[in-house]
Amino acid sequence: MQTLSVALGERSYPIHIGTGLIGEPRLFAPYVAGKRVAVVSNPVVAPHYLGRIEKSLSQAGAQTVPVLIEDGERAKDWKTLDRVIDALLAAHLRRDSLIVALGGGVVGDLAGFAAAIYQRGVPYLQVPTTLLAQVDSSVGGKTAINHARGKNMVGVFHQPLAVVADVATLNTLPDRELRAGIAEIIKHGLVLDLQFLEWLEQHVDKLLARDAAALAHVVLRSCELKAQVVAADEREAGRRAILNFGHTFGHAIEAGVGYGEWLHGEAVAAGMVMAAELSVRAGSLRSEDARRVKALIARAGLPVRGPKLAAERYLELMQVDKKATGGRLRFILLDGLGSATLRGDLDPLLVHESIVAAVQ
Amino acid sequence: MQTLSVALGERSYPIHIGTGLIGEPRLFAPYVAGKRVAVVSNPVVAPHYLGRIEKSLSQAGAQTVPVLIEDGERAKDWKTLDRVIDALLAAHLRRDSLIVALGGGVVGDLAGFAAAIYQRGVPYLQVPTTLLAQVDSSVGGKTAINHARGKNMVGVFHQPLAVVADVATLNTLPDRELRAGIAEIIKHGLVLDLQFLEWLEQHVDKLLARDAAALAHVVLRSCELKAQVVAADEREAGRRAILNFGHTFGHAIEAGVGYGEWLHGEAVAAGMVMAAELSVRAGSLRSEDARRVKALIARAGLPVRGPKLAAERYLELMQVDKKATGGRLRFILLDGLGSATLRGDLDPLLVHESIVAAVQ
Repeated sequence: MQTLSVALGERSYPIHIGTGLIGEPRLFAPYVAGKRVAVVSNPVVAPHYLGRIEKSLSQAGAQTVPVLIEDGERAKDWKTLDRVIDALLAAHLRRDSLIVALGGGVVGDLAGFAAAIYQRGVPYLQVPTTLLAQVDSSVGGKTAINHARGKNMVGVFHQPLAVVADVATLNTLPDRELRAGIAEIIKHGLVLDLQFLEWLEQHVDKLLARDAAALAHVVLRSCELKAQVVAADEREAGRRAILNFGHTFGHAIEAGVGYGEWLHGEAVAAGMVMAAELSVRAGSLRSEDARRVKALIARAGLPVRGPKLAAERYLELMQVDKKATGGRLRFILLDGLGSATLRGDLDPLLVHESIVAAVQ
Repeated sequence: MQTLSVALGERSYPIHIGTGLIGEPRLFAPYVAGKRVAVVSNPVVAPHYLGRIEKSLSQAGAQTVPVLIEDGERAKDWKTLDRVIDALLAAHLRRDSLIVALGGGVVGDLAGFAAAIYQRGVPYLQVPTTLLAQVDSSVGGKTAINHARGKNMVGVFHQPLAVVADVATLNTLPDRELRAGIAEIIKHGLVLDLQFLEWLEQHVDKLLARDAAALAHVVLRSCELKAQVVAADEREAGRRAILNFGHTFGHAIEAGVGYGEWLHGEAVAAGMVMAAELSVRAGSLRSEDARRVKALIARAGLPVRGPKLAAERYLELMQVDKKATGGRLRFILLDGLGSATLRGDLDPLLVHESIVAAVQ
C-alpha cells in the first residue's frame, strides 16, 4: 500500500492506494469507530463489494446502514439526492455520523454532496471502485449533481476525511469504463507531466490488460499530479482550471447527446482531441504533438471524434459551461505536451474550426 | 450607521446597521461593481424594496436580475431551490456573479443555500428585511431548506460577504413578525447578557412601537452577542449550541403543527418557556427567574404555551432534531439569567414534565 497526502491545511487528507484495501478494517477504524456509518453505493457495485466493506467497517467498530442509489449518471439529480437525505434521516444519522461513498464518480459526487449538505455537513470517506474515480474524483473534493441546463451545476467543495483506492476493485470494471478512466490519466500527463505521458505511451497496453502494478502506478501518479494542483488552488480560482483540459468540449458532448450516453471519460477523450486541435490553431502546439495526443487516445480505445452535432450546437452548449467567464468562452490549451494554460482571448472562429475538425 | 465585524478569519464580514441603507449604492459597490447580480426576494417584500435596491445596485455598477420565490416557510424546499438555481442558470450567472438575499429568514436561508451550491459556490449579500432575520440569520452563515422529516435538515454553512440591515424596512413588517423577531432578541439576553435582558424588560414597549433608535440598538446588540459566540465556534461544534436555547422544543412545535402555522419566533418563544421550566426542574434556574422569562415573553405579545400535542409527540419530534447526539436528547438550559449551558444528561421525565407544564 502507498499513501499520498493531499495538502489542504486543516482539510488535508490521505489517499491510500493498493490491492485488497477494502478488506482492511485498520484503514477505516480511525474514522468510523463507534459511529453510525451510511454506505452509499449502487446495485452494480454493491453485489461485489458492499458486504466486504460492511464487514471491515463493523470490525472497525462502526454500525453500518447501506443506502443504494440507481446506477449511472442519471442518479446525479435532485430526486436521488433527496432519497439519500431521506434515508440518512430515516437511519437517524447525526452530525457526528459518517458517510462512505462506495462506487464510481456518480456515487462519489452524489454521496459527497449529500454529506456536505446533510445537517449542514457530515464527514465522508471516498472508496472509489472505478479507475476514473480513483484518479479523478479522489482528489479535489468536488461534489455535485447535474441540472437540465448543465452538468455539475449544483454542488460544493467538500473534502473527504480519506480516500481508500483499492485497485483490486478494478477487476470487475467493464472494459469501456476502464478506458474512460485512462482518458483522465492521459489528461494528467498532457497538462502536467511529459515524462508520465511518455510512460503511458509505452505502457497503455498493460493498463488495458489490467496489470495490477501498472494500474497502481498510474493511480498514484495521477493523484500526485492532481493533488499538487489542487493544493495550490483548492477552489479553482486559477491554476486548477487546467485540469479541465478537454472538459469544456467534453461537457458539451455529454449535454448534447444526453447525459449517460457517452461516458464522461469518453467525452473528455474526444474533447481533448478538440482542445489539442484548438491549441494547434491558436499556435501553442505543434501539429505533430496533436497527432501524438490523438494516437494515444486511439490506442486506449477511446473516441477521437465528437458526436455528430452542428458546431453551433456545441458552441451553444459550451456557453452555459461554468468555466465561461465574463460572457467569453475560456479554454485550456496545451502549450507543448506536459504543459497547459487557460486562455480567454480566442477567436471563436478557431473554436468552430476545431470542433468541425473533430466531429464524426 | 453602525458597522460590526463578524470575526471569522478569511470569512470575516461586516454587518451595517442603520436607517435607509438599501438606498445607499456605496454600501454595495465594493461587492457588486461590474457584476451580474441576482436579487432573490418574494412577492411580499419586492413591492416595497426591490426597485429601491435594484436602483442602488445599478448605481453601484451591477447588472441585476430579480428572482422571486413564494412567500413563507414552505418555500424552503427542494422545488423552490431548483427554481432559483434554474433562474440563475437561465440568467447566465457565473462563478464570479453574486446573489443578494432581500427578505426575511426564508429568503436568506434559501438564497444563501442556493449561493453555496450554485456552481459549487458563489458569494452573496444578506439584506434582511425582518427583525428576526436582522438579529438572527445575519450572523452565522447558516443556510438551509427543510425536509419532511425535520426543519433545516439540508444546508451548509456559507458566510455572506456582508450584511446590510436597514431598520427602515421594519416599518412594513406585520406586528406578528415584529414580535417573532423580539423572541430571538430576548433569547440573546437570556443566554448571554443579563444587562441586555434588563434593558429589554424596560424597553420592550418601545420595540413594539417600532421606535427606530430602540430597534437599531437591539439589532446591533443582538448581532454583537451572536457574533462573539459564532466567532468562537463557527460550525457549532460546541458553545454555539447555546444559541439554540428554546429551539429543540421550538422545532418540535413547528414540525408538530406543520411548518408555517406558527412563526419560528413564536415557536421559539413557547420553546424558551419550556426550556426555562426544564432549567428549573434540573435545578439550574430559580423559579422566580423562570417566571421573569415568561412575563417578558408575554409582554412581547408572544405565546408562552406550546400547541396542544401529547408530550409523547413532542418527544418523538425532538428525537429527529439534529442536536440529538448519541441517541440522547440534549438541551440548552439556563443556569441563571444571562447564562446557559448544554446538557445531555437529563432525566426524560423532567423533559416530559416541562412540556406538560407549558402546553395549552
